[in-house]
Amino acid sequence: MSPLRIAIDAMGGDYGPRATVRGTAAALSERRELVATLYGRRHLLDVELSRLPSSLSSARHRIAIVEAGDSVSAEMTPSSVLRSSRMTSMRASLDALCRGDAHACVSAGNTGALMALARRDIGMLEGIERPAISGKIPNASRGPCYMLDLGANVDCRPAHLVDFAFMGARMVQLIDGVANPRVGLLNVGVESIKGERRVREADRLLRERVPLPFDYRGNIEGDDVFTGDIEVAVCDGMAGNIALKSSEGLARMLGQRLRDEFQRGFYARLVGLLARPVLRRFLQELSPVRYNGASFLGLRSTVVKSHGGARWKGFAWAVKRAADEARQALPQRLMLSSSEHGGEGSIGS
Amino acid sequence: MSPLRIAIDAMGGDYGPRATVRGTAAALSERRELVATLYGRRHLLDVELSRLPSSLSSARHRIAIVEAGDSVSAEMTPSSVLRSSRMTSMRASLDALCRGDAHACVSAGNTGALMALARRDIGMLEGIERPAISGKIPNASRGPCYMLDLGANVDCRPAHLVDFAFMGARMVQLIDGVANPRVGLLNVGVESIKGERRVREADRLLRERVPLPFDYRGNIEGDDVFTGDIEVAVCDGMAGNIALKSSEGLARMLGQRLRDEFQRGFYARLVGLLARPVLRRFLQELSPVRYNGASFLGLRSTVVKSHGGARWKGFAWAVKRAADEARQALPQRLMLSSSEHGGEGSIGS
Repeated sequence: MSPLRIAIDAMGGDYGPRATVRGTAAALSERRELVATLYGRRHLLDVELSRLPSSLSSARHRIAIVEAGDSVSAEMTPSSVLRSSRMTSMRASLDALCRGDAHACVSAGNTGALMALARRDIGMLEGIERPAISGKIPNASRGPCYMLDLGANVDCRPAHLVDFAFMGARMVQLIDGVANPRVGLLNVGVESIKGERRVREADRLLRERVPLPFDYRGNIEGDDVFTGDIEVAVCDGMAGNIALKSSEGLARMLGQRLRDEFQRGFYARLVGLLARPVLRRFLQELSPVRYNGASFLGLRSTVVKSHGGARWKGFAWAVKRAADEARQALPQRLMLSSSEHGGEGSIGS
Repeated sequence: MSPLRIAIDAMGGDYGPRATVRGTAAALSERRELVATLYGRRHLLDVELSRLPSSLSSARHRIAIVEAGDSVSAEMTPSSVLRSSRMTSMRASLDALCRGDAHACVSAGNTGALMALARRDIGMLEGIERPAISGKIPNASRGPCYMLDLGANVDCRPAHLVDFAFMGARMVQLIDGVANPRVGLLNVGVESIKGERRVREADRLLRERVPLPFDYRGNIEGDDVFTGDIEVAVCDGMAGNIALKSSEGLARMLGQRLRDEFQRGFYARLVGLLARPVLRRFLQELSPVRYNGASFLGLRSTVVKSHGGARWKGFAWAVKRAADEARQALPQRLMLSSSEHGGEGSIGS
């Protein structure tokens, strides 16, 4: 395989270079075809590189560093980031993608800023008005399940939801090899309403387009996301973001409560010790690291957002995700089924 | 205490009279001040009453039955239920509340139909345009935390979100005895957007009203709901319903996966046996029964919706919830802080 270069915003996320450098090295040591450029403060990155365990040393010579002195803080608004002329690590890594010096970009930084810069500098696929943030979520089947949009758009129109359905389905086909993905529209269950107007309208638009290049299942409810009965759950960014964050919060709370239960009294503590390997397996499932790496769909190149709270293992997942998408030329092939879709963005496979 | 009469739609829910009759008896045996009238098919209810365990027999003489031959099915639309002249168990139990023959009503039936009938027959508090469905959710603090709206309204306006904040806060004050409830507006975390227009506008409206009769915390994200840092999370019915159902689905999946982990291999199964009491405590937390009973806020009388999938223990929770709200005269006192709120609905305390 020809080498794939990943541009890494090495300064983003809660753990900064500590997570991004080791995470990148871990991904590279697993994937021999990858090379990476880290954008950030050279002296900090050098320190982290020198600290890599020997098991990751094979990756070391495939990692380059490019100095980028500034960072985007979590507090900066997208508009202020857009106005600023500072060459931040985030912007430098996106620039590399723009220039064709990299095949994909990964950042754990400020999501809004990343999305705004990527839209402006990388641009959107033709026929796609709004990008969507897509994330993989755990489910009962252990097969892939994605939810989109997770927060790039609020107040979006029915046609945008239709685009999300097409983009999500295509991604599952290309990345996960599911020939006929099952796609559902997230809606409320209460019959009095039968859902928001825009969701009803999106449903109508999708039904008009039959035959669709995926298995459209109509309306679904929030709990259907985790049953393993669908591969793509489509919703607006407001509902998706709230659902995702709620699920994260609930999982974190349940993990803590499970640990607490095994601390209550002598017997529970003893059993807790014995059960540790089993519990550890289970608690790993609850970790946000497990499915880290949200895809920005609709852009002309692959940009993956790593969870701000992910440590190096999580960051490695995000790098591998970016590599998978770039390897499949996902952005270029995202709108291939444009004959059904009516879009113009097909660049061919 | 003077007796409180609860009108029970005994035919609703996935388990029908099997859950509602025993659940009612269980609530009554715990709360000596309660009496109940079951509305439904007398011969079915009689059978269930005769099957009550002896531990619940003390409640038996406080339960009356009123024949109501028809039921609202889960498939009926609210509009068809409103048009119908049939005396269903749901309508009969709401009628009892209307006439003043009962202090509260509990149903496990079709949510949309229940809300539509309740709005028409019981009516709304003055100054409240939209009712909200409020549900208690588990959180890290083990203190109360409610989310509303859970699906009564989609496409709602900023002023409705403001009403939900006032109603939710007042409920926590009266039912849970929290003097200064912390209230947050659910919003997306992605900075590019700073949230939906209506949420931003609701935030502005709330900030204009300072001093508020509660501790307004501004925007929160989905994961803040479970941390125990707020008592009331306000959102529109679309986001709330999707978040709630997602959380339910996730909790169910995790419960199953935890059981599965303790089946993988001999060692895990052995430890699983030893850990059973601890796991059982934990899994109970995951059950929808645990916090069953969603309040319809904004109506002139107390109506509580029991989860359709709840069994008798869950239904008993819903009956007790209804009793608590009626005992506190929650509907009448909901808009007491109307001087701040500008509403006209205050009927006094």
